[in-house]
Amino acid sequence: MPADRPGQALTLVIFDFPARPPGGPEQAAAMRALAENIAAEPGLHWKLWTESAHEGRAGGVYLFETRAAAEAYHRMHAERLNRLGITGITATYRTLNLDLSSITRGPLSV
Amino acid sequence: MPADRPGQALTLVIFDFPARPPGGPEQAAAMRALAENIAAEPGLHWKLWTESAHEGRAGGVYLFETRAAAEAYHRMHAERLNRLGITGITATYRTLNLDLSSITRGPLSV
Repeated sequence: MPADRPGQALTLVIFDFPARPPGGPEQAAAMRALAENIAAEPGLHWKLWTESAHEGRAGGVYLFETRAAAEAYHRMHAERLNRLGITGITATYRTLNLDLSSITRGPLSV
Repeated sequence: MPADRPGQALTLVIFDFPARPPGGPEQAAAMRALAENIAAEPGLHWKLWTESAHEGRAGGVYLFETRAAAEAYHRMHAERLNRLGITGITATYRTLNLDLSSITRGPLSV
């Protein structure tokens, strides 16, 4: 695709880590506050919060405007998770095929 | 969340497999035809087409209306990829935290 095409740098990152046991109302409030903080992250289009009760995993799928924004978030978020006692975090980086994603209604922006 | 909440069954599936070398114009046309076929898949909200030139991987992130729709697609798609000579396919199933995803502009529908 042309080098100057808008959106060419869009970067998808999939975070995945062992889930902690669900907490009570205080944890729920803390998670909402965290979500509001993440929503204000520079260069973030959107985040889906993922869970697997069966596998005991949690994480998120993020779409960032650039790879640099994704990497900056990755560093900060991994440190934040570590402070919460969460380790074993995986982060998978992917670029997107914009033409094919458009045909299948892929959410490339919000 | 309440058992009768709309969207509770939303299922995210992440497919990932070794990438094949890019083909020419004929392959590009075949991929567009495949994308149009996938766009008509029952129960599919959207698909993002993922790539990693660095890791030699390709795949997709899919949002399905139900787990049953996701599993039906998974069976069909794995067979289709196998016929194309693609093996080593991983499929990761996740549910979504709808409240937190809404706060971070997560694309829950189109």
